[in-house]
Amino acid sequence: MKKFFSVADVDNLGTVVEEALAIKAAPYAEEQLGKHKTLGLVFLNPSLRTRLSTQKAAMNLGMQVMVMNMDKDGWALETQDGVVMNGTTVEHIREAAAVMGEYCDILGLRSFPSLKDKEADYTEDLFNKFVKFCGVPVVSLESATRHPLQSLTDLITITEHKRVDRPKVVLAWAPHVKALPQAVPNSFSEWMCQAQKEGLVDFTIAHPMGYELSKEFTPGAQISNNLEEALQGADFVYVKNWSSFVDYGAVYPVAQNWMMDNEKLKLTNDAKVMHCLPVRRDLELSSEILDGPNSLVIKEASNRVWAAQVVLKRMLEDLRK
Amino acid sequence: MKKFFSVADVDNLGTVVEEALAIKAAPYAEEQLGKHKTLGLVFLNPSLRTRLSTQKAAMNLGMQVMVMNMDKDGWALETQDGVVMNGTTVEHIREAAAVMGEYCDILGLRSFPSLKDKEADYTEDLFNKFVKFCGVPVVSLESATRHPLQSLTDLITITEHKRVDRPKVVLAWAPHVKALPQAVPNSFSEWMCQAQKEGLVDFTIAHPMGYELSKEFTPGAQISNNLEEALQGADFVYVKNWSSFVDYGAVYPVAQNWMMDNEKLKLTNDAKVMHCLPVRRDLELSSEILDGPNSLVIKEASNRVWAAQVVLKRMLEDLRK
Amino acid sequence: MKKFFSVADVDNLGTVVEEALAIKAAPYAEEQLGKHKTLGLVFLNPSLRTRLSTQKAAMNLGMQVMVMNMDKDGWALETQDGVVMNGTTVEHIREAAAVMGEYCDILGLRSFPSLKDKEADYTEDLFNKFVKFCGVPVVSLESATRHPLQSLTDLITITEHKRVDRPKVVLAWAPHVKALPQAVPNSFSEWMCQAQKEGLVDFTIAHPMGYELSKEFTPGAQISNNLEEALQGADFVYVKNWSSFVDYGAVYPVAQNWMMDNEKLKLTNDAKVMHCLPVRRDLELSSEILDGPNSLVIKEASNRVWAAQVVLKRMLEDLRK
Repeated sequence: MKKFFSVADVDNLGTVVEEALAIKAAPYAEEQLGKHKTLGLVFLNPSLRTRLSTQKAAMNLGMQVMVMNMDKDGWALETQDGVVMNGTTVEHIREAAAVMGEYCDILGLRSFPSLKDKEADYTEDLFNKFVKFCGVPVVSLESATRHPLQSLTDLITITEHKRVDRPKVVLAWAPHVKALPQAVPNSFSEWMCQAQKEGLVDFTIAHPMGYELSKEFTPGAQISNNLEEALQGADFVYVKNWSSFVDYGAVYPVAQNWMMDNEKLKLTNDAKVMHCLPVRRDLELSSEILDGPNSLVIKEASNRVWAAQVVLKRMLEDLRK
Repeated sequence: MKKFFSVADVDNLGTVVEEALAIKAAPYAEEQLGKHKTLGLVFLNPSLRTRLSTQKAAMNLGMQVMVMNMDKDGWALETQDGVVMNGTTVEHIREAAAVMGEYCDILGLRSFPSLKDKEADYTEDLFNKFVKFCGVPVVSLESATRHPLQSLTDLITITEHKRVDRPKVVLAWAPHVKALPQAVPNSFSEWMCQAQKEGLVDFTIAHPMGYELSKEFTPGAQISNNLEEALQGADFVYVKNWSSFVDYGAVYPVAQNWMMDNEKLKLTNDAKVMHCLPVRRDLELSSEILDGPNSLVIKEASNRVWAAQVVLKRMLEDLRK
Repeated sequence: MKKFFSVADVDNLGTVVEEALAIKAAPYAEEQLGKHKTLGLVFLNPSLRTRLSTQKAAMNLGMQVMVMNMDKDGWALETQDGVVMNGTTVEHIREAAAVMGEYCDILGLRSFPSLKDKEADYTEDLFNKFVKFCGVPVVSLESATRHPLQSLTDLITITEHKRVDRPKVVLAWAPHVKALPQAVPNSFSEWMCQAQKEGLVDFTIAHPMGYELSKEFTPGAQISNNLEEALQGADFVYVKNWSSFVDYGAVYPVAQNWMMDNEKLKLTNDAKVMHCLPVRRDLELSSEILDGPNSLVIKEASNRVWAAQVVLKRMLEDLRK
């Protein structure tokens, strides 16, 4: 594996989940694999779960980890070519990425979208240039349009907790006070659509009008604007807010109550409830669910380690070839 | 040991000091104990000595360390239940603590008091909730009302440098330009009162009127508002500023000169002078003392490693059971 | 080696470069040398290359690394003696340095100049006090007037890529939008003048009038105010901006075009082009050079690891004696 950016970077979802669960059962089995290998984690934006779980995964594999926080003033990167750099950007991504690639065997990059320039965000300009110029394998720690370590984690968690062969999974939009990226829902949808294709799940998306995701991420998904209908018979409900893709970055007033709570849970097949965290309690998701028996959110977060570890393991194996 | 928060978390002060000094004599004797164990250090406030010494202690025990700085914008934690999270707090401590507990075998938490809401500070709301929700052993890296790693260090340092069996120890209030927490003096007093009970020291507190500490921290201490009297025959003088507990967080003008200097040192039994650092030179404590033979401040700071290491060692031993 | 601050801390340039290249060929040959030794990296200013490459070097030697970012609010250090600390500085360098020396076997310090107080900057007040008070070997990670790890790297890179025994090396001033320190050009000049003395290079400096470096750094260098003339027959061109030393920190308008580009390259002996990075594209140095076959900037940055590793190795060997 040279890049972990989207579901397309994994051959077979069933196999990678199985491998992750084997790692979970024996976390230190491969701790010689990462000897003398260095992972560099580059954060252009804040991170808690991704930061800690990816570090932990790398250490479990015997790797060394270096963390670079570039979200502070004075680290603005230039991404455009042909620009005279007489402004506020202090280094071009061509040099910054190449240099980090010299010091690290594998790099991870986190970079949020602007939510202003849809084209720049959706062409994944920054992430792609980083991959191109750094010259080493790159793990996305969340990019403008995707959060693949989260989505792989989610599939692992669903596999662990499913009570039927092909559970019904519902991605349910939820309210928030801020305009959030589409990265997590895009990515979750992309992975679930592929999982559906491989016969692993049935996948439905529910959101208010105006919150349609880009179609490239939803092939084969059932899409509904009626939450109550969508929840019927659900085995897993994945709660998440996102801002509008069509009217890029916009947040519309939503009259209906889209917060997930115990009453809505009654419509489901005693569904397990998931969220990538951080979650706004009693705005996106009720406290009664989060503190009750149906919540998987902590187990889900915990599984972030095994998603990161299977990805790093595959990259290390390729480097050893 | 499941928690290291106050003197009550240690059975016998003599024994823990002896164990710390044995670790100091052979720092790497237990470097297998921490293999495959991860310490997470969570800082809601700045730290230098605590950060470095606790990392060092963990590495001496063979642990892996992950550091999480949460004192920047955007990481505000919600601690109250029943709140609709539609404001500035981005994550509830229930989730944040639980997730960190999934990635780490032991956690350390630093969190300063508000100095505004006495009740919230003195019920140690944040620290207690963190312990409750994270599910793993927690070391206080200084909380609203206590700094136990510092106090254990201080007892180790006094034990190393005492010239009589039961030295006289004086905690001496000193001036400052800012309103500082009572955590260090509370904690020092709590440990010295217990040490006095175990026959290890005689303990006196000297402070101007209005700077009384909460009585729960001073059982059995002699308390004086006259520094000169209190210093008579002292073997150790522990210099520290704090703001008012009664008139919570207030700083009163103090007419008399409370800065510790060589002239005042003459009143003592050639006392060793201690301070937890950072110290304001020639405001809290004179340069002549700090640069002279009676200062223990650097040796004291150095001992922070062994205090942290004995605590982590005991926690690791419990985890291995 | 007790200190790595200037070219005077190295006996023989040829030998240290040879040793660095041997390390590059076998990076892990000495990974027992750093066992149980801790490197503390203290940053009073931002860092990317220095931070990552020095960490990597230390890990290659089996050392543990602790990083301390002190460039944030609230960590202002007092450096003057005899000052009553009732202002904004929270800790004196006497204590801060001494304490860090207790936790670490070797320290690295980065501290930029004020560019306002020439005397304080050029007496290297902060760096020298840090060395004096910390009590352990110190590596400069760039100080007010020098960046020796960069200069050693540059000599390693020139040695690797030279096509003649004694190449002509030109330090060429270049435009910028900000007032930059003289540390990199001072240091490069100091090292090249010594290399010239040892018969390894011929060294020329080209800069506009008013940008003269302090003479202590340029003994034996040829100095020109005519870039075209200076570039004649050059084998290496080292491009770098700096602000005025004479009119301390000033930036003068420069009418002539001093940006290095392919046209100017034609004047040289097909020179290799170097820069310490970050570089302002098409302001200091043209994109066509940076993306072309003559650029060494990435290889140069990569060599930072071996410069740091040879310095740390020598310090560790001294500690083991």
